[in-house]
Amino acid sequence: MHCSVARTLDVVGERWSLLILRDAFNGIHRFDAFQASLGIARNILADRLAKLVEHGVLERRRYAEHPPRDEYRLTAKGRALFDVLMAMVHWGDTWESEGAEPPVTITHEGCGAVMHAVPACSNCGQILTPWNVRTHPARTEADAGVSA
Amino acid sequence: MHCSVARTLDVVGERWSLLILRDAFNGIHRFDAFQASLGIARNILADRLAKLVEHGVLERRRYAEHPPRDEYRLTAKGRALFDVLMAMVHWGDTWESEGAEPPVTITHEGCGAVMHAVPACSNCGQILTPWNVRTHPARTEADAGVSA
Repeated sequence: MHCSVARTLDVVGERWSLLILRDAFNGIHRFDAFQASLGIARNILADRLAKLVEHGVLERRRYAEHPPRDEYRLTAKGRALFDVLMAMVHWGDTWESEGAEPPVTITHEGCGAVMHAVPACSNCGQILTPWNVRTHPARTEADAGVSA
Repeated sequence: MHCSVARTLDVVGERWSLLILRDAFNGIHRFDAFQASLGIARNILADRLAKLVEHGVLERRRYAEHPPRDEYRLTAKGRALFDVLMAMVHWGDTWESEGAEPPVTITHEGCGAVMHAVPACSNCGQILTPWNVRTHPARTEADAGVSA
């Protein structure tokens, strides 16, 4: 499906995959540490890690030779999911917390505040809302066919 | 699982659900219009719409009485997913487009630029990165047990 949201979901739309990435942002890199953090079955963890490596958002790096041991590190493509994670965390905290305190608070080291992420315009920095953006579908081959 | 990312995925981690929301942001509200846009089987569409209503991100509104016809509108909770969608679109465009032009371009009406969303600090407006935020796990009952 020719849609960026669909392609993103192919990579991060599965619960364990995104939770693994969340842990990776929090400094977890090794199989046993992921397993302890997530309480996930080892075969499922191995499968999800392999898929994330296949999608290029994690990469395996050998950290010991005897016995051979690999760890999993975010690639540039994986680090770019920071924006998606920050948005998901804030939405979950706001709308799905059932009145509980957020399980994690996040501070911005620049200003020191406990804060959340808001979407800003990459050009001018103003805050974006559903009312101040406009989407323009690109002309696709299908469109060209219809208009021909 | 006591994690905001997991709770968010409960609502938007399924491909059709997020694509339905994307269409709702683009002004689609009626069953047949969703169906035409997504090419989704009617029983699956009905199921996903019902789940989104159940989660409170869409609400049904009657727009005709004879015969009775409902449409689906984003609630405040649903509109708040704008941040998540903007982040997903940008990531997909950047990393999963396989060199193709983005299927949709987005302009910010404030400055007129074709742009994408970047995460900014809700307190000071500076751009957030994985390197300038710090997460602080809240003290949980489990923690209290360990330290007791």
